[in-house]
Amino acid sequence: MKKSITSLLFSVLFMVIPCITLAFEALSTSAPTPADNTMSAAKVKLGQQLFFEPRLSIDGTVSCNSCHNVMGSGTDNRANSVGVKGQKGGRSAPTVWNAAFLTAQFWDGRAATLEDQAKGPILNPIEMGMPDEASVIKRLAAIPSYVEQFKAVFGGSEPLTYDNLAKAIAAYERTLITPNSAFDRYIQGDKKALSKQALRGMKLVEDIGCTTCHSGASFAGPALAMGQGFYQRFPTFASDYDDKYQLKKDLGRFESTGKDADKHMWRVPTWRNVALTAPYFHNGSVTSLDEAVRVMAKTQLNKDLNQSDSSDIVAFLNSLTGEFPEQTLPHLPDTPGHSLVGEQ
Amino acid sequence: MKKSITSLLFSVLFMVIPCITLAFEALSTSAPTPADNTMSAAKVKLGQQLFFEPRLSIDGTVSCNSCHNVMGSGTDNRANSVGVKGQKGGRSAPTVWNAAFLTAQFWDGRAATLEDQAKGPILNPIEMGMPDEASVIKRLAAIPSYVEQFKAVFGGSEPLTYDNLAKAIAAYERTLITPNSAFDRYIQGDKKALSKQALRGMKLVEDIGCTTCHSGASFAGPALAMGQGFYQRFPTFASDYDDKYQLKKDLGRFESTGKDADKHMWRVPTWRNVALTAPYFHNGSVTSLDEAVRVMAKTQLNKDLNQSDSSDIVAFLNSLTGEFPEQTLPHLPDTPGHSLVGEQ
Repeated sequence: MKKSITSLLFSVLFMVIPCITLAFEALSTSAPTPADNTMSAAKVKLGQQLFFEPRLSIDGTVSCNSCHNVMGSGTDNRANSVGVKGQKGGRSAPTVWNAAFLTAQFWDGRAATLEDQAKGPILNPIEMGMPDEASVIKRLAAIPSYVEQFKAVFGGSEPLTYDNLAKAIAAYERTLITPNSAFDRYIQGDKKALSKQALRGMKLVEDIGCTTCHSGASFAGPALAMGQGFYQRFPTFASDYDDKYQLKKDLGRFESTGKDADKHMWRVPTWRNVALTAPYFHNGSVTSLDEAVRVMAKTQLNKDLNQSDSSDIVAFLNSLTGEFPEQTLPHLPDTPGHSLVGEQ
Repeated sequence: MKKSITSLLFSVLFMVIPCITLAFEALSTSAPTPADNTMSAAKVKLGQQLFFEPRLSIDGTVSCNSCHNVMGSGTDNRANSVGVKGQKGGRSAPTVWNAAFLTAQFWDGRAATLEDQAKGPILNPIEMGMPDEASVIKRLAAIPSYVEQFKAVFGGSEPLTYDNLAKAIAAYERTLITPNSAFDRYIQGDKKALSKQALRGMKLVEDIGCTTCHSGASFAGPALAMGQGFYQRFPTFASDYDDKYQLKKDLGRFESTGKDADKHMWRVPTWRNVALTAPYFHNGSVTSLDEAVRVMAKTQLNKDLNQSDSSDIVAFLNSLTGEFPEQTLPHLPDTPGHSLVGEQ
């Protein structure tokens, strides 16, 4: 009888353990693609050029890559980004790596898609500073190779449009995926891929409740419809950190929606490559991942972590750093004999 | 007798024509390398990372590539470059493409070698703004992969030094060569590589005297010893252009040597890829290549070119745009859990 109970217990455990493991998912190697912006090699190549194109800024000094540096973490590792004329932005640049998996873009989720997001910074006076869409298109229209590429990629009677510019950039961004992290290899069967410390951290993030929000393959929330976004109040619990890191100064999603319910609501950010994207939070006020973990545990779960626990969680978060795909350096098309930004 | 004279004349012409052709040289596909900085794949790879490394600037916003964009012309196509905190430099960034062939660096030739040049902008308060060499080394020493790479590339008891940083960047820059322009193909035997207009321009630059200074494979002067530099007064002849383009405001080489004889002396710049490096001259005051050609003819040779002549010369200069080698996008090493520039 005792043997039978033990046997039953083992069977139950055997059923439960895979379920726990299933709560964690490996990152897909391909991103969801909208029906009206299918991928092609030519579109991605065009999008990559545009992503690195400083002539999309008023004075030719800032490209998408300036703040979302894909040679590194997909951020600028600064508290606030610097746009044209040395101006500082109000929030810390989120990473562009794996952004294709998120169901809303920007810290406050105000853009539903990568396409919508791409349209913002170019016209933001603090970021790239172009006065309007027409000025952007006029500039691209003065670069022969872009005219040809837009025609080849999009066709139709008016291939060079602001919408198509955003589509090309978004298509490139959908290739910015970092699979095969130590965590992914572990989940896919390589049980030696994670250290004991990382495994302790992996258990902790479930046990204390981090994965309530940081769930799914991106650790950024459940698989919702594209555009829906997954939000959480930050900070949820009041603490000394509120003042120390000025966590409540920025009203979050409220700033774009104006709805009281959106005050201090933020899109849950991904944990993928989070070890590389310091400093942390929307205002980049926290310089180390270790401290960021403690702040989150306190403000979101009202838990005071000891050093051992926060170190274990950091070890797990480090295991979420993926493999960065090799890319060719783009060659930006020329305008022989003159410059489009020389007099700015 | 008449036949003999004609025959003789033909023989003489036959001897002369090859001599004229020999005045033009194709660009070498490899640059001269100093004995104390030999090339290796690992050194070039390290140098490329450093060239694209924004953490070599005080606030993490400016890399060598910001002003010498090798995705394009090797310049920023601006009259004045923009450094940290939105500050504007005093001169227009020269191209880094084929700089390895020049026998002095910077507009005023104040650096003898690529190594010497690379040390300047990092510490320039207007450009990358690092306070001193020690701060630069301290920052690189905090990036584990750089410590390993410097050790592997340079060895010895102290591999991570400012001198070695400059050597790695210079080694990378020696790979930035654009051979096989239409002009090069023509010189090497493909007589269809140049249009009739470009050929007229080619003859003109010799006939009116441009190639007195713009000689050699780089069209930047004779093959002198590395470090010697080849200089010319600009403007040589007074004209309305002096005021129009403020050509005499900057005292040129005098600013670094303090010698009266160096007033308004400038290192003769290369014509290689000159069609891509607008705006023109040390102050970037001239926006089109067409106008730059007219200004040079007037200020240096006291010649007023007609539109037909300047167009022919521009056609020839366009033929000096070379082939840009395909490069891999570098991956910049990380500092997991924290940022080196987050609080700047």
